[in-house]
Amino acid sequence: MAKLPFVFGPLPGVAPGHEFRNRLELYGAGVHTQTQAGISARQGEGAASIVLSGGYEDDEDWGGVIIYTGRGGRSAESNQQVADQTLTGSNLELARNCTTGLPLRVIRKVEARSGSFYRYDGLYRVAGYWAEPGKSGPRVWRFRLELLPDDGPPGSNPAAAASVVAEEIAAYGPAPRRASTVLRVVRDTAIGRSVKALHDHHCQVCGVQLRGALPYAEAAHIRPLGAPHHGPDTLANVLCLCANHHVLFDLGAFGIAHDFQLLGLPGRLITQKKHLITPEFLAYHRAHFYEPQTNAGQE
Amino acid sequence: MAKLPFVFGPLPGVAPGHEFRNRLELYGAGVHTQTQAGISARQGEGAASIVLSGGYEDDEDWGGVIIYTGRGGRSAESNQQVADQTLTGSNLELARNCTTGLPLRVIRKVEARSGSFYRYDGLYRVAGYWAEPGKSGPRVWRFRLELLPDDGPPGSNPAAAASVVAEEIAAYGPAPRRASTVLRVVRDTAIGRSVKALHDHHCQVCGVQLRGALPYAEAAHIRPLGAPHHGPDTLANVLCLCANHHVLFDLGAFGIAHDFQLLGLPGRLITQKKHLITPEFLAYHRAHFYEPQTNAGQE
Repeated sequence: MAKLPFVFGPLPGVAPGHEFRNRLELYGAGVHTQTQAGISARQGEGAASIVLSGGYEDDEDWGGVIIYTGRGGRSAESNQQVADQTLTGSNLELARNCTTGLPLRVIRKVEARSGSFYRYDGLYRVAGYWAEPGKSGPRVWRFRLELLPDDGPPGSNPAAAASVVAEEIAAYGPAPRRASTVLRVVRDTAIGRSVKALHDHHCQVCGVQLRGALPYAEAAHIRPLGAPHHGPDTLANVLCLCANHHVLFDLGAFGIAHDFQLLGLPGRLITQKKHLITPEFLAYHRAHFYEPQTNAGQE
Repeated sequence: MAKLPFVFGPLPGVAPGHEFRNRLELYGAGVHTQTQAGISARQGEGAASIVLSGGYEDDEDWGGVIIYTGRGGRSAESNQQVADQTLTGSNLELARNCTTGLPLRVIRKVEARSGSFYRYDGLYRVAGYWAEPGKSGPRVWRFRLELLPDDGPPGSNPAAAASVVAEEIAAYGPAPRRASTVLRVVRDTAIGRSVKALHDHHCQVCGVQLRGALPYAEAAHIRPLGAPHHGPDTLANVLCLCANHHVLFDLGAFGIAHDFQLLGLPGRLITQKKHLITPEFLAYHRAHFYEPQTNAGQE
């Protein structure tokens, strides 16, 4: 079998609901580039896909939300958990998706009367991870996967978008979900991952590197993406920031002058030769977000 | 007319799509507690609803995404912008929704052949705000409103959930949307707003208060909400944190001992008499998020 490229996210021509007769077909289409293992991951990059076969006692499949159990510590004979799992190997790569925002393709094994087949069920994000004793006793690592509603062209997957809402409500129970609101959504792009790698996840304002098992940073677009701002998703329009300075930048609590002097905060932006920033984008942010605040109502 | 309570979020018996003959009916149902003004807000709390009448030259209505223009600076005669708007009054309250996460009810005036009527179109979040010169020249404040998919009981509003995706893609253009993924979603609840008020938006770990025009903090549930953790949405299970310490807490980079000593970080949790924290929730977080990291794979 030819070696296939390692791709994250959607694959051309493979929409959610696409069916495959067996693991070899999945492999051939590049949907899951492993013929036996349940997780397809690359060290240092993250996990691109998983196959849910229903064989693991600790997995929970709610549809739009999946509680997925890590690998390792299982008996080859009984498939039961006999030793503690560690946050290494494929498990660490799944955790990496949580800190990079890279999506995961999810494939389910479907048992039908005429035999089993595999179905590609769309992209999920790794929303969180933790460890606890599994059903058999030893510790397992668990990953909360949530269906992303924006897989495919507009309107191609409305059922999936609606189902993630219904399933989340089912999983959480209606009361807390009804009472909760979305305060902040942090999105990421390929360019965002580049800028974080360039700065090794250090904030360009304060220099801090947040980290759990893996380093964490956020990519902040200087002139925001999309309508009505229409900023580009390019390295020249993005900063690597810690979560706090990302919040403050978006709120216009500080701006950045053309010589990278910070405005509203002491100091200077930490820059890098390989990361050229376009002065026009800094001017756009100052004019729209920072400067109008100078006569804003203060509490 | 009787004085109605000031309510944020969904109203019982009023689903998206509900129609009202006139402003008085909207008022009577408590959907928009103003008979003339376009924004219904309470000082220091936020905005609960807006009515889009299509009368403002700077508004942009994309369906699932609305670019809404603030109030003030308009000529009563021409309805044109003649002076700069300021981030005060109703405008500041709309900005407050962005930092509290409180949802906004959106009502659209619909022009039909048989006359006009008003339609409740669901809950939106204030995703961001900025200022720029309006079409007539003077500065206007603009608010990006995004339809929340979780208004109403499971499955009640699938069209709205699907439409927010399609509209967002339309507004952003397909390319950047396809390339972007969700890194982090910060949700908020009424209890979250209480804990932030109790600590005046100061982080219980580092004491910092982030602020733009308004203070910003995040509420972190100690034992997470919903399946499979089933932590409660109560004051005893929530912390007031800055964005950085929220990220680190969720990643298990630090834990909190029963005597509020921080584990993995120097110092002690900043506590408050009125904010009692249940030790069992701290133990749950330590066991599931913090302690397993101590032998996690480090990069």
